[in-house]
Formats: sequence, structure tokens, C-alpha cells
Amino acid sequence: MEKKKTTIVLFSGDYDKVMAAYIIANGAAAYDHEVTIFHTFWGLNALRKDEPIQVKKTFMEKMFGKMMPRGPEKMGLSKMNMAGMGPKMIKDIMKKHNTMPVSDLIEMAKEQDIKLVACQMTVDLLGFKQEEIIDGVEFAGVAAYLADAEDGNVNLFI
Amino acid sequence: MEKKKTTIVLFSGDYDKVMAAYIIANGAAAYDHEVTIFHTFWGLNALRKDEPIQVKKTFMEKMFGKMMPRGPEKMGLSKMNMAGMGPKMIKDIMKKHNTMPVSDLIEMAKEQDIKLVACQMTVDLLGFKQEEIIDGVEFAGVAAYLADAEDGNVNLFI
Amino acid sequence: MEKKKTTIVLFSGDYDKVMAAYIIANGAAAYDHEVTIFHTFWGLNALRKDEPIQVKKTFMEKMFGKMMPRGPEKMGLSKMNMAGMGPKMIKDIMKKHNTMPVSDLIEMAKEQDIKLVACQMTVDLLGFKQEEIIDGVEFAGVAAYLADAEDGNVNLFI
Repeated sequence: MEKKKTTIVLFSGDYDKVMAAYIIANGAAAYDHEVTIFHTFWGLNALRKDEPIQVKKTFMEKMFGKMMPRGPEKMGLSKMNMAGMGPKMIKDIMKKHNTMPVSDLIEMAKEQDIKLVACQMTVDLLGFKQEEIIDGVEFAGVAAYLADAEDGNVNLFI
Repeated sequence: MEKKKTTIVLFSGDYDKVMAAYIIANGAAAYDHEVTIFHTFWGLNALRKDEPIQVKKTFMEKMFGKMMPRGPEKMGLSKMNMAGMGPKMIKDIMKKHNTMPVSDLIEMAKEQDIKLVACQMTVDLLGFKQEEIIDGVEFAGVAAYLADAEDGNVNLFI
Repeated sequence: MEKKKTTIVLFSGDYDKVMAAYIIANGAAAYDHEVTIFHTFWGLNALRKDEPIQVKKTFMEKMFGKMMPRGPEKMGLSKMNMAGMGPKMIKDIMKKHNTMPVSDLIEMAKEQDIKLVACQMTVDLLGFKQEEIIDGVEFAGVAAYLADAEDGNVNLFI
């Protein structure tokens, strides 16, 4: 029997939405789905290393790089962000309930062989360099996404 | 012939998005689909009773409870919220066009046997108690969602 | 062999999300999918002509018409909008990378026979008149959407 397939386009760069995406993805992998997360636009920030990396950039690329969060743990919430208090509150509560932070969920995704893809077009537009992206990520375009999604059982845009 | 299936992850807590979710869900049920709405994160607020319920809560849980809307009719809009004017304007127009408010769409969903699920993890994180949630709601996790979605014809994340 | 099918509910009225929707749609059409974009709520603004059209409207309809963007090129970003600076920055970068603006992506969608649908209910609620909508758009309801989506390979809500 063929494996079931789940694909997620992760467009959002909000901590809560990235968390939802990775919880669904890890769940699907645990149920033996083949899972792909295609990171595009702000969702790409989930794949950034959390420290600044020395790379050559144009002025605009540097600016984008500075303004956007380096990795999931620096993201805000889509609601009740409250100038940065919201993420702290949510993370405190998550800790109390032994819920994994998003950075751990990403690690888990890699261990479960979830395919993490960075949208090449957005990478180019926002001026990210490969050195700034965590290891184990593939770079591809919308054609690769569609090839996965057209046979997908569960396809979501988050 | 097997029934078609529609599943919606309702993550958003905005009035307009909750409305879109319930219109699609009710439409699908009318077309004889088996329909599940899995309420997670801010979408959970759509299932809250609209009055305060006396339950034991930690300080943090009380705070979350107060800051978040009790039921759909207290939600804001994802756009043009204008400090609460937006929802009022939209509701006035909806009334003039005989469009159902979201609270009625939820009632209709129950009458059409749409399965309303509250994400247990979010319920725990945000500290909701079962007494605060409207009747007829099931509590389940991502595994239950995936079991429905993997055979779904239409799966959406809203 | 039957054609693969992609459907997108375009609910959002943010430039970046509309761009993502039309890039996926055009990609799917290029891979020989039958594609439908169902524009509802703020997504409807993507289909507005970019100049004011003389039509009879109620006070409320006029107000909505003024407050909402006329066509995609007047939309803001879902993130880093920075009081209108964000869209300008993104468009400058897109130009440098020879990426099509959204208005061109919509033209391309029409050339590729992507079915562009305006949600009749939202059209009525927000008081849009047919003369204000670009040519080649169909008007339909949730039933038509579901008829397309229930056989869809890729169904997304953006």
C-alpha cells in the first residue's frame, strides 16, 4: 500500500502558526505519512539560524535580515502579541505543560524525516544566503511543491 | 457510495474567518459531506459560552480567559477592525442582507451533525474548563484530526 | 486520464498572500491542472478595477468601497507593512529580480484559463457592483466552490 502524504505550505511567520504547522506535521509523520513543509515568505524565518552569519548582502537584504526574526523562538504571535509579552507568556505556559518549543518541534521533524523545503524564490527575494539556513533543508520552487501536493491526502496552507 | 468528507482546522479567532469556516462547513454538510471542524488556538474562542462561568483557574488562566473573546459575537475582524467599529458595521450589513450571525451558523452546524472538536492541547494550554465550552463539542487531539483529514476530499486550514 | 484539479479560496487581501495564491495557481495551471480561485471577503479586492467606477451605492457601500484597496497593487502586506513602506520595498526588490507584480500574475491566470470566481455573498455584503470587477470573472456561491473542491487534488484556503 502506498504511503499517505501530508504537505504544508508554511507562509506565516507567527510563532503560534508555525507551532500549529509543526505539530500537525510531526503528528502526520508519526502516523506514517510522508510529510513535506514548504517554507515560503515569512515562514522561511522558521529555518533561519538564530545567530547572525557573516555573508555578503546588499543594503536592502541586510535590512530585511535585521528586521525579520532569526528562527522561530524570536517570532511574535498572530494574536495577543502585546509587544512581545504574549510569546513569553505562551512559552512559560508551554513549559509548565511540558509542551515542546517550536525549535524542538523542528528538530523532531528532521528526526522523523519530514522534508523541509525553503522556497527558492523567496530566498532570493529576501536575500537569504544558504549559510543562514539551518542544515538539512532543501531549496526548491513551486513545481516541486505541486508535485508533492497533487498526490497529497492532507494539503494545508498555514 | 462512500460519503464525501470535509475537514477544517479552525485556528483563527477573527469573526470574518470563523464566519467563512462555518459557511463552508454548513455548505458542505448541506451537500451531504461528513464535516469536522477542529478548533485550535484562537479558534477555540468560537466555542466559548458567552457568559463568565465560575471555575477554578490559575492566575495566568484567568488572565487569558479575560483577554480572549467569549464566543464568536465578541470577536474582532482580521481587517478593518477599526477599534471594534468594523464588526458592528459588518453585522449591521449582514442583518440587512438577512445573513446569519456566526452564533447562528454554529447552531446550524450542530443541527446538521457537523462534528465540532476542541483541541485538547490548546484547551489545556489556555486553561479552558469544559464548563466554559458550549454543549455538543468533542475534545480530541491532532491524531483524531489526522484520522479524519487523511480521507478528506476538502481539507482546509483557516 | 482525468485532469488534476487545484482550488484556492482566496480570503486574504494582503499583497503577499494574494501573490502566493496566484503563484501557486499559475504553477498548477502550467502543470496542466484545472484551477479555480474563489475570491471571498478581502480577497475580492484583488478583482477590483483600479479606478473608481460611477455606480449607485448606499452610504455604507460607498464607505467600504473607499476604505478597501482598488486592485492588488494598492494592497498592504500581512507583515512588515510599515505604513505602506513595506509593499514599496517588496515591489522594488521584485522588479530587480524580474518577478511579476500581482496584477500581471492575474493577467497570466486569465491567459491560462484559470477560473476566477467572485463570491456572490461577499459581493452583495460589501456592495460591489459588477462594473467595478475586472472582466472575465464569474459570480458564484459556496455550492459552486464545493463542487470544484470535492474533486480537487490540491485545495487551499489562503
